[in-house]
Amino acid sequence: MFGLIGCMRAAEGRRDELLAILSAQIGEMPGCKSYVIAADARDADAIWITEVWDSEADHKASLALPHVQATIAMARPLIAGFDSHVITRPVGGVI
Amino acid sequence: MFGLIGCMRAAEGRRDELLAILSAQIGEMPGCKSYVIAADARDADAIWITEVWDSEADHKASLALPHVQATIAMARPLIAGFDSHVITRPVGGVI
Repeated sequence: MFGLIGCMRAAEGRRDELLAILSAQIGEMPGCKSYVIAADARDADAIWITEVWDSEADHKASLALPHVQATIAMARPLIAGFDSHVITRPVGGVI
Repeated sequence: MFGLIGCMRAAEGRRDELLAILSAQIGEMPGCKSYVIAADARDADAIWITEVWDSEADHKASLALPHVQATIAMARPLIAGFDSHVITRPVGGVI
């Protein structure tokens, strides 16, 4: 499996708007086993996205899906930056 | 929902052993919607655990479950430390 853990920063005061955009059009993403969009409970502008995919190729392919492209386009103006980006190899748990 | 994103460090050279212990006895954890155990792809000693629970209370209750207590006891000697611990509020995605 292939995993990602990333933290992005919303433009000041616009996190809820960004969270709504990110979670509105999740739709079908082949090979996606987990895709969690979450607000940081302590940092008012931080959003965490944690992902598990069957393979890195599945993740790459998802970025070309029309609904994912549309979401990225809508979200981009509300993203102030990216704090951390970790690549992982999920091994187990409740997935 | 209640979420956690944490990074722990395995004792040097013993990450695979620790990963095996952590993922061996997952069992039933009421209220657990996602519990991903993953190796950091670039840092040889780092393990990431990302969790989504129906509530913070469900997460707290899980720590008293016998199989969770047993896992913690087995894992503790192989844990060198904890790097990061983020509390989140999951809002959507593929969970």
